Amino acid sequence: MEQLQYQEGRTEISHYGKVALIDRLTEGSGCQGDDCAVIGEGSKKTLVTTQTLVEGVDFDMMYTPLKHLGYKAVAIAISNIAAMNGSPRQVLVSVAVSNRYSVEAMDELYAGIRLCCERYDVSLVGGDTASTRAGMVITVTLVGEVDETKVTRRSGASHNDLICVSGDLGSAYAGLLVLEREKVTYQANPNFQPDLDGFDYVLERFLKPEPRMDIVKKLAEREVVPTSMTDVSEGLADSLLHLCKASGSGCEVYEERLPIDYQCSRVCSEMSKNMLPVSCALNGGKDYELLFTVSQKDYERIKEMEGIHIIGYVTEPGMPAVMVTPQNTTIELKAQGFTRE
Amino acid sequence: MEQLQYQEGRTEISHYGKVALIDRLTEGSGCQGDDCAVIGEGSKKTLVTTQTLVEGVDFDMMYTPLKHLGYKAVAIAISNIAAMNGSPRQVLVSVAVSNRYSVEAMDELYAGIRLCCERYDVSLVGGDTASTRAGMVITVTLVGEVDETKVTRRSGASHNDLICVSGDLGSAYAGLLVLEREKVTYQANPNFQPDLDGFDYVLERFLKPEPRMDIVKKLAEREVVPTSMTDVSEGLADSLLHLCKASGSGCEVYEERLPIDYQCSRVCSEMSKNMLPVSCALNGGKDYELLFTVSQKDYERIKEMEGIHIIGYVTEPGMPAVMVTPQNTTIELKAQGFTRE
Repeated sequence: MEQLQYQEGRTEISHYGKVALIDRLTEGSGCQGDDCAVIGEGSKKTLVTTQTLVEGVDFDMMYTPLKHLGYKAVAIAISNIAAMNGSPRQVLVSVAVSNRYSVEAMDELYAGIRLCCERYDVSLVGGDTASTRAGMVITVTLVGEVDETKVTRRSGASHNDLICVSGDLGSAYAGLLVLEREKVTYQANPNFQPDLDGFDYVLERFLKPEPRMDIVKKLAEREVVPTSMTDVSEGLADSLLHLCKASGSGCEVYEERLPIDYQCSRVCSEMSKNMLPVSCALNGGKDYELLFTVSQKDYERIKEMEGIHIIGYVTEPGMPAVMVTPQNTTIELKAQGFTRE
Repeated sequence: MEQLQYQEGRTEISHYGKVALIDRLTEGSGCQGDDCAVIGEGSKKTLVTTQTLVEGVDFDMMYTPLKHLGYKAVAIAISNIAAMNGSPRQVLVSVAVSNRYSVEAMDELYAGIRLCCERYDVSLVGGDTASTRAGMVITVTLVGEVDETKVTRRSGASHNDLICVSGDLGSAYAGLLVLEREKVTYQANPNFQPDLDGFDYVLERFLKPEPRMDIVKKLAEREVVPTSMTDVSEGLADSLLHLCKASGSGCEVYEERLPIDYQCSRVCSEMSKNMLPVSCALNGGKDYELLFTVSQKDYERIKEMEGIHIIGYVTEPGMPAVMVTPQNTTIELKAQGFTRE
């Protein structure tokens, strides 16, 4: 009856980086730390990714409509397939709930799941339900495919490659900040009507993100295969550090080039004068935009591409990952701890 | 800020059968309700299955060594591949934990995961970690393969097919009963030494189940392709009802033919004179044995097969699923509610 989790020589997970922990746990295995596992022998590779969302950690039922939640659970799995330059094909969804949830609530959740499947042409091929003592746990397993010649991993960036990002960054986090503010106000006074006017864009970015399959298609149309790619799920800094570590390179990005929407800036200025939009972009997360690198020879093909921003370039092996401010100060980007997930 | 889960016209999930709920949620989709999703165009099919284990629901950390837990999480996913007559190939594991767990605890968990992968020749191709506010959630996604001609679904059973089961039934549940008894005793008096002598078999059946890949291999050697198959994860009654429903048939099984180990019988007699070993076999669950049907023409090929028991036969469409007692009484098998998972 010993409780094995309490051991001597205990190392706190919070003192360990998330990436370092995964590296430790999977050392010597076939894990490459990409957004998806790549399997199969032939020229057509199968991509597999699994996403688990836990109530209270990954979503707050106070302000998350169930239909949006279902949509988002599938959307962020599709984003992992997009990050490998692949196309989503089949999805399996497993939902574990407590008796707090009704059958009608499950209908709502699945309405969102089905809507996202329809929009991205994904077949729902497996479903399962289970019970929990408290809260909801959603697990989405997505299978996709990609030509062997088009697989983009995190590890392919080379010196002088251009660093590109799609859409804008920080807006999802700004949306979360608005929802958290209104939640606190509502909890203090339940008669209070939430004020969400003028924040429609950032709210949608948080509640109903769209995976950037449109960018994957545009890259294919222009015959550009990125040298490396990942999605921006935990903030730009985290994604850049992943790419640099996997590729054995450094990077230099320019603060003034980071795409930030005016609603994100407005939320920051309303919240606190110490909150900078660039912090939302670097560390906010949940944007599900694509971060990728391309060879300099592809510059002409992507420079006019809609929705793409060139934000910097890959530096030599051994160099750090840095951001250069408009005042020409160089700031080293830091890994975040495990606790931010 | 409305909490969408509390709606008018609320239907309790507990009043809804689990299978009926999945049918409702996935209606019109490509879900066939098998143990795995079957994907791919060619003659070699890809199998995908996802298992999520939630602390406090699927496992109790009081008596579950982490290494065993890791092993079991992969083993029960492999069992789903076995149930489709396939072979496991690659696995992705995602573990979400609270700060109660140390890095060393994660090492233990992964030691079990790797051990099971080695034993069943599965490659660990993806790993991820995340945080929870409380408890551990383990998600295992397993990819396997099977020849198109050998895929066994739940839906292929025909009238007069023989019903077979591997190993023995009820032992895993008996093991759980022993552990629960010792837990209660320990909680009453922490100085009490647990008495697990003589229960090694049922404890191992619960804590470290082995997927029946050996049966899949033996069937292939004898060139027997079952007409239908599933694994026994929630008890024999549940699995039989699944097969019958999917196949549109009834069934008749004989109580005296159900394989039950003497340790299971011993646990039952020690626990209560009202607890029957046959109840453990029918409703206990977690055995991860294979339940399958074969055509009468294959009788000669399987009758001497080690570890296989013929327990009854498939009856006509429209007939119920029943068990016949040694006293020749016929008992209709009932579906269990959602709450038993």
